[in-house]
Amino acid sequence: MNINYLPTKFFDCESNFDDADIVIFGAPFDSTTTFRPGARFAPQTMRMESIGLETYSPYFDIDIEEHNINDSGDLDLPFGDTKLTLDMIQIQAKKIFEKGKKSIMVGGEHLVSLPVIEEAYKKYPDLRIIHFDAHTDLREEYLGVKLSHSSVFKRVWDIVGDDRIYQFGIRSGTKQEFYWAKDGHIYINKFNFDNLLSIVEKIKKYPVYLSIDLDVLDPSIMRGTGTTEAGGVSFKELIDAIKDVSVLNIVGLDIVELSPHYDHSGVSTAVACKVLREMLCAVLK
Amino acid sequence: MNINYLPTKFFDCESNFDDADIVIFGAPFDSTTTFRPGARFAPQTMRMESIGLETYSPYFDIDIEEHNINDSGDLDLPFGDTKLTLDMIQIQAKKIFEKGKKSIMVGGEHLVSLPVIEEAYKKYPDLRIIHFDAHTDLREEYLGVKLSHSSVFKRVWDIVGDDRIYQFGIRSGTKQEFYWAKDGHIYINKFNFDNLLSIVEKIKKYPVYLSIDLDVLDPSIMRGTGTTEAGGVSFKELIDAIKDVSVLNIVGLDIVELSPHYDHSGVSTAVACKVLREMLCAVLK
Amino acid sequence: MNINYLPTKFFDCESNFDDADIVIFGAPFDSTTTFRPGARFAPQTMRMESIGLETYSPYFDIDIEEHNINDSGDLDLPFGDTKLTLDMIQIQAKKIFEKGKKSIMVGGEHLVSLPVIEEAYKKYPDLRIIHFDAHTDLREEYLGVKLSHSSVFKRVWDIVGDDRIYQFGIRSGTKQEFYWAKDGHIYINKFNFDNLLSIVEKIKKYPVYLSIDLDVLDPSIMRGTGTTEAGGVSFKELIDAIKDVSVLNIVGLDIVELSPHYDHSGVSTAVACKVLREMLCAVLK
Amino acid sequence: MNINYLPTKFFDCESNFDDADIVIFGAPFDSTTTFRPGARFAPQTMRMESIGLETYSPYFDIDIEEHNINDSGDLDLPFGDTKLTLDMIQIQAKKIFEKGKKSIMVGGEHLVSLPVIEEAYKKYPDLRIIHFDAHTDLREEYLGVKLSHSSVFKRVWDIVGDDRIYQFGIRSGTKQEFYWAKDGHIYINKFNFDNLLSIVEKIKKYPVYLSIDLDVLDPSIMRGTGTTEAGGVSFKELIDAIKDVSVLNIVGLDIVELSPHYDHSGVSTAVACKVLREMLCAVLK
Amino acid sequence: MNINYLPTKFFDCESNFDDADIVIFGAPFDSTTTFRPGARFAPQTMRMESIGLETYSPYFDIDIEEHNINDSGDLDLPFGDTKLTLDMIQIQAKKIFEKGKKSIMVGGEHLVSLPVIEEAYKKYPDLRIIHFDAHTDLREEYLGVKLSHSSVFKRVWDIVGDDRIYQFGIRSGTKQEFYWAKDGHIYINKFNFDNLLSIVEKIKKYPVYLSIDLDVLDPSIMRGTGTTEAGGVSFKELIDAIKDVSVLNIVGLDIVELSPHYDHSGVSTAVACKVLREMLCAVLK
Amino acid sequence: MNINYLPTKFFDCESNFDDADIVIFGAPFDSTTTFRPGARFAPQTMRMESIGLETYSPYFDIDIEEHNINDSGDLDLPFGDTKLTLDMIQIQAKKIFEKGKKSIMVGGEHLVSLPVIEEAYKKYPDLRIIHFDAHTDLREEYLGVKLSHSSVFKRVWDIVGDDRIYQFGIRSGTKQEFYWAKDGHIYINKFNFDNLLSIVEKIKKYPVYLSIDLDVLDPSIMRGTGTTEAGGVSFKELIDAIKDVSVLNIVGLDIVELSPHYDHSGVSTAVACKVLREMLCAVLK
Repeated sequence: MNINYLPTKFFDCESNFDDADIVIFGAPFDSTTTFRPGARFAPQTMRMESIGLETYSPYFDIDIEEHNINDSGDLDLPFGDTKLTLDMIQIQAKKIFEKGKKSIMVGGEHLVSLPVIEEAYKKYPDLRIIHFDAHTDLREEYLGVKLSHSSVFKRVWDIVGDDRIYQFGIRSGTKQEFYWAKDGHIYINKFNFDNLLSIVEKIKKYPVYLSIDLDVLDPSIMRGTGTTEAGGVSFKELIDAIKDVSVLNIVGLDIVELSPHYDHSGVSTAVACKVLREMLCAVLK
Repeated sequence: MNINYLPTKFFDCESNFDDADIVIFGAPFDSTTTFRPGARFAPQTMRMESIGLETYSPYFDIDIEEHNINDSGDLDLPFGDTKLTLDMIQIQAKKIFEKGKKSIMVGGEHLVSLPVIEEAYKKYPDLRIIHFDAHTDLREEYLGVKLSHSSVFKRVWDIVGDDRIYQFGIRSGTKQEFYWAKDGHIYINKFNFDNLLSIVEKIKKYPVYLSIDLDVLDPSIMRGTGTTEAGGVSFKELIDAIKDVSVLNIVGLDIVELSPHYDHSGVSTAVACKVLREMLCAVLK
Repeated sequence: MNINYLPTKFFDCESNFDDADIVIFGAPFDSTTTFRPGARFAPQTMRMESIGLETYSPYFDIDIEEHNINDSGDLDLPFGDTKLTLDMIQIQAKKIFEKGKKSIMVGGEHLVSLPVIEEAYKKYPDLRIIHFDAHTDLREEYLGVKLSHSSVFKRVWDIVGDDRIYQFGIRSGTKQEFYWAKDGHIYINKFNFDNLLSIVEKIKKYPVYLSIDLDVLDPSIMRGTGTTEAGGVSFKELIDAIKDVSVLNIVGLDIVELSPHYDHSGVSTAVACKVLREMLCAVLK
Repeated sequence: MNINYLPTKFFDCESNFDDADIVIFGAPFDSTTTFRPGARFAPQTMRMESIGLETYSPYFDIDIEEHNINDSGDLDLPFGDTKLTLDMIQIQAKKIFEKGKKSIMVGGEHLVSLPVIEEAYKKYPDLRIIHFDAHTDLREEYLGVKLSHSSVFKRVWDIVGDDRIYQFGIRSGTKQEFYWAKDGHIYINKFNFDNLLSIVEKIKKYPVYLSIDLDVLDPSIMRGTGTTEAGGVSFKELIDAIKDVSVLNIVGLDIVELSPHYDHSGVSTAVACKVLREMLCAVLK
Repeated sequence: MNINYLPTKFFDCESNFDDADIVIFGAPFDSTTTFRPGARFAPQTMRMESIGLETYSPYFDIDIEEHNINDSGDLDLPFGDTKLTLDMIQIQAKKIFEKGKKSIMVGGEHLVSLPVIEEAYKKYPDLRIIHFDAHTDLREEYLGVKLSHSSVFKRVWDIVGDDRIYQFGIRSGTKQEFYWAKDGHIYINKFNFDNLLSIVEKIKKYPVYLSIDLDVLDPSIMRGTGTTEAGGVSFKELIDAIKDVSVLNIVGLDIVELSPHYDHSGVSTAVACKVLREMLCAVLK
Repeated sequence: MNINYLPTKFFDCESNFDDADIVIFGAPFDSTTTFRPGARFAPQTMRMESIGLETYSPYFDIDIEEHNINDSGDLDLPFGDTKLTLDMIQIQAKKIFEKGKKSIMVGGEHLVSLPVIEEAYKKYPDLRIIHFDAHTDLREEYLGVKLSHSSVFKRVWDIVGDDRIYQFGIRSGTKQEFYWAKDGHIYINKFNFDNLLSIVEKIKKYPVYLSIDLDVLDPSIMRGTGTTEAGGVSFKELIDAIKDVSVLNIVGLDIVELSPHYDHSGVSTAVACKVLREMLCAVLK
């Protein structure tokens, strides 16, 4: 009789770094969260849960266990030191992009996207960014803090400029943020994905980075996140949107803002894992 | 360097009573609740949470911080003495209506609506009442008790009579309640808001009181309430309904039956605050 | 003055076994659950909750208290001994079917359906089975175990063979399960109930057993279950599906996989009770 | 092979009312609770949990299944109508005491003790009352309400007068309550049971009613109660105190203020059941 | 009939700043928390809960409502910017100390004590510090971060030097921290308060700052804190210790590290409020 | 700048199997649990939590990171097949004992101890067993099931016979179990560790297996376990008991019955990890 041991990697992905086309890593940081913190617990909790999820997607008819994916583990990040944290994430992202691999980051709060997008932009100067979120994240600062999860896409815009960022599902922000964006800086599709396909058509020749803040989902299905906003998209709408963007040349992506302790049933974590599986399929397709 | 302190009023509304057009107050009472009590905790919990919510509504394109709203605080009500409680609420409602201000009450269980509607009716004898709820609340009595949240709209009917009360979203009641209502007493739109616009058209020349029992929402989005009923309306449907009634002359409104301790994620409280914000916009419009 | 006592039976159904046309019983077993156990607590928790639910269904316009239904109570099943458990359930099912009564079982995990379906099939050799679930449950075995809730419909198929099992709402399984089913063994309607009416039409002359795994519902409304899968059907879609099958000659049914401790708000239990009430209406109609 | 069904009575006590020496009943009422309500759910939740508890007490070396105990079930009490509720409880208590049986009531909030003690006092005019609690419960009124769980022992004192009530474990009250009690009305042993044995010695020739508010226990072991107070007695200290009073002629007792929903782990309910088992042993001894 | 409104200040303390001898304020910050964040929610949650707590302490026989205490509210601190946060707290502390008032700060994580102790030390150069905690908090840095709640008392030591800091209840730290402290820098009384009275005797002529990290309490009574450590002191031991230090000249104090969301029963918050009430009594005595 | 990754082994123990003196492994099985299942989640949850715990014990003055310990991971066990599960655990235990290493198993429910003790007994025929538990676990069977966590020490006794098993902390069982044990079969020290030192003295020349069911702890500190029993030992008493047995020649040990989902605060898991750390120290000493 054989005895087996339980797997310990995301979706039991066992490729090593060099062989892998895709690299997953966790960025457990949440110090700038403005409301309910706890996104630091997302990568480890999702990894543990992902092991029980089927590797086969009936949405894409793809089995991710047939592909070469590396799980690098989670970075050991210093809480309370935002600058140092972002630097460490940037080193990891650079390591992935410079080998031509695709980067899959599991946050952490949304600020962790900043250094990865910066590295993606260095590697792919034509980069376009698709951003699913409930919030604009376009504040110039939050109580005097410029490096905040509330201002992360303002910081991204500082780097990439106008006509590069496309936001969907947005339903919360200050009046100022909405009006500034509309002023020709950022494309915002409020509430839903209604114009996603036309944007996909428009940017199909460029490399794309996809950033999904899980609070784009309605809190009925995603309670475990720091700043829930009612009126979000359903899981089915999100999966359809992921399928829509899967025709693009996605060079990197992230999934952020799961705060698992706020959903004791475990549903939010299970949903996050399933979204991540479909995002992997979108890259693998 | 300046230091600031956190606000302590609903949505940081800082007008005083005399200057305000709109007055918010809390009515923390739940003694007649037939199933899960705890609505007493709603006003304080919502106030604390409301401080973190954006004051700008992308649904109405209105920023409530640009308006004169007073938060009077919460009444200190005696649990277990229904009569005394209703009297205290009635004094507060009278104080608001007699100055021509609009009353926004945050319950508490649904029975707290009774004295406010009575005062609104005294001030506005042509009053019509729009009632969003999962339950008919039309029992003659509940285990011998006539002043119960299960019979509150039968008590309202005792005061205002036929053709004044319009119910939407109803999906639970005894056979007898449904049949009595249909007998020409109360308009019931079962399950949804299908006929809301035609009712709005019909009563547009009258002053209107709007009472929203949060269990009209589906429990997927509103778990923190005493008597959840599956099959409810979605948050989007509710917002649309609020927009539909916003063309009316709303003289008062209430939002009741949040029982925050039954939803540890805090989502129900956040949803209630957002519904309240949109209700304020409907009055401000 | 009279004093009354609270009821202690499902929906206060007080018929004795001999007089009843319909018999409810609980099967509190969950030893083969592959992820979150706890379905053992479902029957007792649902019974306690069912007492507060209205007996009148506005969906069917039926009041179940006007019918003869017996609640036999819950079997006292031995955890950890799958074989013995299944034998005890089979005795109970036989007792019901051989008197020509209809069997309503409240699980427990899904494996408990196996002996009941076997008895139904003995009584009604033309039996067709309608199965609502998120999962195929068609594994040949799970880690070497053939009697598992992951393989229960493979075991049912071992008994009834091809063209007897119709699955709806399915959105999780191994690649192998989906491909084997498609190979002419089991009808699978992925994700939803799109083809339910045509199947109902096709099998309308046969006796039917209906098995509902509550995880067919989306986790937004059903968190308290062992293996939640996002992307499920809504409560309204499920009620509509129950109405669709209510035209059939349903000889038995079960509702399984509520794990009430994973939903502290009590919503999942309330939903399960309401689904059960509508299933009873479907049989009574 | 036999099949068995799960029991449905407290500790599986199956005696009928006439044969029993001891009668248990539930009084699910909590409308006057000043802080966290929910004690209404205690009797049913405890009954369900009690079934899994061993009937043998290693503290008393008594097996309660060897005795004649009747579980009458729970009264169906009208929330929000305090007077009617107390009347119904009084009828039930009278029925028990006039047959010379011993009354075991499971609350509910503490106010439910009032009518039972009144009936006990009618039957046994020499009655002494031992009261374990964190709170004095001696307010003359609470926000104008005289029938409140905060004033229940002031109301008992109205009936029985000075030198009849002995309180232990008390650690919360207004300054006025403590000073009034000390003025010769009520014996208060603050914080613990230090003088219990001398009081037992003093009242050993009288019939005794024992009322245990579960918040006498420290919140470390009893979280599921409406108004927890740190600094309480341990479970072992409470068991020892119950053993100390077991030498007395206890004619009735109650256990009140479990609010099970505030302790999702189920520990508070399990503790309450075990305390009740030992209280039964104290009467049986 | 009068209507009253619920209070909104800590323990309903209504003095204004100028008249008060004692000033309470909240410091809701938790960005450097190394494990479970959420201490930011402590001040508001405690304030809301404190309103229901009796103002009379049976431990000290003091009623705090008879004293002049000001609740300044909570500072609005920028998450993720440690330096700016500490500066804002320091301004508030200075404002209090320079008027000769006593400072009562409610954290927040433990790092918030640093600027307050620095200001106290400026005002009272002879200052001694008594520190109740489970952890040494003496790391030189945590993953490269010097301003961390894990190193706060190393930072305090940087300011005040040897023989000024007295720690009690300590039961967790690195080997290095324990050995460094023992090397003549910090007095550590491991596990309990055994030598507290002799230290009190030793420092009785100096002004004293008291800092209580609530995790000094055993997790049985204090679950809602970021880094629980079993083997802590009981509530009674803590109250006794507070009484022991009440003979000293306490010029300021703080209570930190309540993370209320991790204890859904509300017990941890209630305990924290009661500890704070007794700390106030210790200052008032 | 270096970037580091978070550890993934128990207490960051990185020795390989061959070099290690001590081997830890998880046995995630709970199918025979008679009340609340979920012990299957213990090993993974504890491992994740253990990473944040200090490796230095101030109780033993030992730092476990200075020792050679291997974490083999968790066995992948088939739920619902008790026999197969026990066989797989036995193979793992044999592998460890036959190399002369010490076995540290993290359950799972208590039945998983059976095959490990059997292997320990084969290797060390003089083996004595020290068993800390709330329950006797001495039933001959549970509802017809002989391999149940309720009968595991009866099964151990079947193998090792009289005068080999020493139980401490026991406070629950049937009358029959207590009387049978007293009949010369098993040593039971009820409620506490009063006679532990004399038993240690008596068996000090024999190899010893230590089995700790975490429900020996009082539920105030250990809520996350399947069958809590009030009146247990405190954490300090358990640590003292572990120190007492640390003078013995412990050849293997296990820690079982953590059911982490029943304690959302995470305290039970943290306590379990700390007990495990001290158990490791007891072996290392």
